[in-house]
Amino acid sequence: MAATPVWSVDPRTGKQREQVALEATTGEVDQVVRAAHAARASLTDRRVRAALLRAAADLLDEAGPHVIEAADAESALGPGRLTGELARTTAQFRAFADVIDEGSFLDIRIDHPDPAATPPRPDLRRYKLPLGVVAVYAASNFPLAFSVPGGDTASALAAGCPVVVKAHPDHPATSELCASVLHRAAEQVGVDPAVVSVVHGFDAGVALVKHPLIAAAGFTGSVRGGRALFDAAAARPVPIPFHGELGSLNPVVVTEAAAAERAEEIGAGLAASVTLGTGQFCVKPGFVLVPAGPGGDAVVKELTAAVSDSEAGVLLDHRMRDNFLAGVRERAALTGVDVPVTPGAGGEHTVSAGFLSLPAALLAADGEHDLLLEECFGPVTVVARYDSTDEIAVVLSRLPGNLTATLQVSAAEAAGDGDAAALLDRLTPLAGRVLVNGWPTGVAVAPAQHHGGPYPATTSTSTSVGGTAIERWLRPVAYQTTPEALLPPELRDANPLGLPRRIDGLPG
Amino acid sequence: MAATPVWSVDPRTGKQREQVALEATTGEVDQVVRAAHAARASLTDRRVRAALLRAAADLLDEAGPHVIEAADAESALGPGRLTGELARTTAQFRAFADVIDEGSFLDIRIDHPDPAATPPRPDLRRYKLPLGVVAVYAASNFPLAFSVPGGDTASALAAGCPVVVKAHPDHPATSELCASVLHRAAEQVGVDPAVVSVVHGFDAGVALVKHPLIAAAGFTGSVRGGRALFDAAAARPVPIPFHGELGSLNPVVVTEAAAAERAEEIGAGLAASVTLGTGQFCVKPGFVLVPAGPGGDAVVKELTAAVSDSEAGVLLDHRMRDNFLAGVRERAALTGVDVPVTPGAGGEHTVSAGFLSLPAALLAADGEHDLLLEECFGPVTVVARYDSTDEIAVVLSRLPGNLTATLQVSAAEAAGDGDAAALLDRLTPLAGRVLVNGWPTGVAVAPAQHHGGPYPATTSTSTSVGGTAIERWLRPVAYQTTPEALLPPELRDANPLGLPRRIDGLPG
Repeated sequence: MAATPVWSVDPRTGKQREQVALEATTGEVDQVVRAAHAARASLTDRRVRAALLRAAADLLDEAGPHVIEAADAESALGPGRLTGELARTTAQFRAFADVIDEGSFLDIRIDHPDPAATPPRPDLRRYKLPLGVVAVYAASNFPLAFSVPGGDTASALAAGCPVVVKAHPDHPATSELCASVLHRAAEQVGVDPAVVSVVHGFDAGVALVKHPLIAAAGFTGSVRGGRALFDAAAARPVPIPFHGELGSLNPVVVTEAAAAERAEEIGAGLAASVTLGTGQFCVKPGFVLVPAGPGGDAVVKELTAAVSDSEAGVLLDHRMRDNFLAGVRERAALTGVDVPVTPGAGGEHTVSAGFLSLPAALLAADGEHDLLLEECFGPVTVVARYDSTDEIAVVLSRLPGNLTATLQVSAAEAAGDGDAAALLDRLTPLAGRVLVNGWPTGVAVAPAQHHGGPYPATTSTSTSVGGTAIERWLRPVAYQTTPEALLPPELRDANPLGLPRRIDGLPG
Repeated sequence: MAATPVWSVDPRTGKQREQVALEATTGEVDQVVRAAHAARASLTDRRVRAALLRAAADLLDEAGPHVIEAADAESALGPGRLTGELARTTAQFRAFADVIDEGSFLDIRIDHPDPAATPPRPDLRRYKLPLGVVAVYAASNFPLAFSVPGGDTASALAAGCPVVVKAHPDHPATSELCASVLHRAAEQVGVDPAVVSVVHGFDAGVALVKHPLIAAAGFTGSVRGGRALFDAAAARPVPIPFHGELGSLNPVVVTEAAAAERAEEIGAGLAASVTLGTGQFCVKPGFVLVPAGPGGDAVVKELTAAVSDSEAGVLLDHRMRDNFLAGVRERAALTGVDVPVTPGAGGEHTVSAGFLSLPAALLAADGEHDLLLEECFGPVTVVARYDSTDEIAVVLSRLPGNLTATLQVSAAEAAGDGDAAALLDRLTPLAGRVLVNGWPTGVAVAPAQHHGGPYPATTSTSTSVGGTAIERWLRPVAYQTTPEALLPPELRDANPLGLPRRIDGLPG
């Protein structure tokens, strides 16, 4: 059987650009994983890991124009957005290098012996070790920051784990280009380039998650694809952690006082967040509770104007475009759903943004309208008009898990008046990031970031952005009554590496 | 259909003692979980949680004689061992109260805005919240410390999660008694007693892990039972974290130099660790690599003497006794396996300890001898005699994951001579706790403890003993641009609760 070719496709025309690679066979996946496993020792030294990440950042910056050109040709995301995404990507590599240098991710705990304890306490010293080879499933919508050189790769390498990336079919050429840059970075710092490799093909992705030497996986994508891989990871003879970001509705609640006070600002801000990047962000606000009555009407009026004014855009691929159009059609056809601005086919290859609207009461119980509580990828959102705070509570109780939940309040509410605190308490269980008077698009790379949330937002309690994303690829090990000469230097009494540690339960 | 009665059975006679309860129906499981979920707000205040744990410890100490009597009658573990286990159990409650007071488990991170960052950084404040109602599956071999009042319950309550315990059928009366003590503790500190409940029955356990309001599960038991529940947890519409401790061989490597130097001490220590508690510890050393030749012979000689001298004991139940006898028979019948001391039926209800021996070379490749690399619960171990360090490496590479791995070295090796460091590097990937010149039985309750390990030792990277066990029941949430008045006090700039926090990436 001939190997299946992998084509780079231009979403602006739907035409094939070039043949980039061949899909990997199961045998090839096996080879790549074995090579990655064999190369793991070259990541043992943390200083080398930090150097690798910084070299990767520098070389990606250097290769910037080529990388951005390749990514734009395959994704149609535009040079402006991609320049920002590249900066985010290299910032991420440098941030994880800093995480390595700082050292608290090792979570070192040293307990000296205490024969008087119950039960008696021997000398115990614990830190965290890399899990092994990590499988990374790249996202469609971030050809850089959530793909080959993305946060999963950066955090896994920072943890000391080699990485095999299953490239996304929407940007195979960019994936290969970025892999070559990462290989140059590895060579520059004396690391075996086999610590990063790329495979293409759906079957290769399935073979990857089942490979006995794969120790964990990171995924960003759809509920359907992510759940299938999660299930495969759980069904292995030796199950592995699967950190998947699958989908999110990202609800927004606009209070009556907020609508009365800032209708134009809220309508315009919502439109900008929904249409940003042609609605292709996992944190796009896809569901908005807006009060019935004049304040809410004013929000909707501004939203209508701003969305109508937004430019048509190109989605990442034509299958996505078909799904978007079909998803919108199906939702718009539901009883009681209005379509103030019809999202749709802008031209042969583009789509235009829009939004749907309905009374929140239609969502109070199980029924066909539940479809509106599922993510629709692309430039569309659902506005549900509520009559009371009780109605907000009922609808929120019916939402699945989310990456984000947003509250828009008035100045007085922000100062503590009214129901805002109670509303925040209702939103918090729904999401991993909760915003007040902001918009969820734009995910900062920061130590306190949490980009994850209750299922289906994430299949674990982890984050894929921010410093704590490294925790996904580590496991603790404790050494008991181990002589100083045999202990890893991280755990020796003299602390030769100057690492942050907790001694006998306290920061030391 | 009549409800199935739950009997307390005396393992010393095999006779029913008393009917304790009825197995819970699916409807009853639903009621209990809903009540626990409804009661979760009474655990919101961390000071109340700490008070609850300390009250539980005090009341368990007070009820000590009754608890120990009940546990001994059902488990035959003996008052001495159970007195120690109770002390461990109450120490565990108090240790988690201290973890709450200290506060670093909240992992608070505050990032102030940085508009110059790429992408721009808004105000972000992250901490950890309780996941929700936790299902706990009690262990057979620890009627207290890994059962109703055990570490899973203590750590879940400490995290702010209500608990529903599936009692182990080996000690239903003890389970009910301990639940009543925990309910009194709850009443004493003004917490809804529904935050802890107990259900009985296999089907109830399955219904529990599938209940939509169960947010996570902890399990200690067999590979078969644990894997079935893990699979059910993963197959839910909304999968949940399942922290299961399933089984462990706990390999020991005795170096040639150690055998030459301390044969008697090692043989006696091994015998004591294998026979402790009639071999019913999950960290029992079940597989020992001993050198061929005179040093190893001396170890085996001492082991033979000490195991022969050990007293027969009663296993936790008669099914376990049958499984032990059958497991030993099957292993002893393998080609090339010697039985220096035959483990077996001591009397009608007891078993005697023993051990098996074979050349390590028989374990170098797949085959019938792989059975010897599976845990056999009870007072038996397998001694594999090796000819070379290479042979140690080959056999270790074939082992599954373990809770512990132990190295016995000479004084010179402990000081850094010879292969000890290389051997430790081979043992570390196999286990969550690595010991040098100690024995794995005896799991200290300590901040640096890690009681967990690669599958099947644990189904996750977590620990079920020690301060970090609380991490299993928490999830992070980040607040973005949230006004001071709406922030939880933990995240306010003034730090009114005086909690440890990281500010802008650094300890603050």
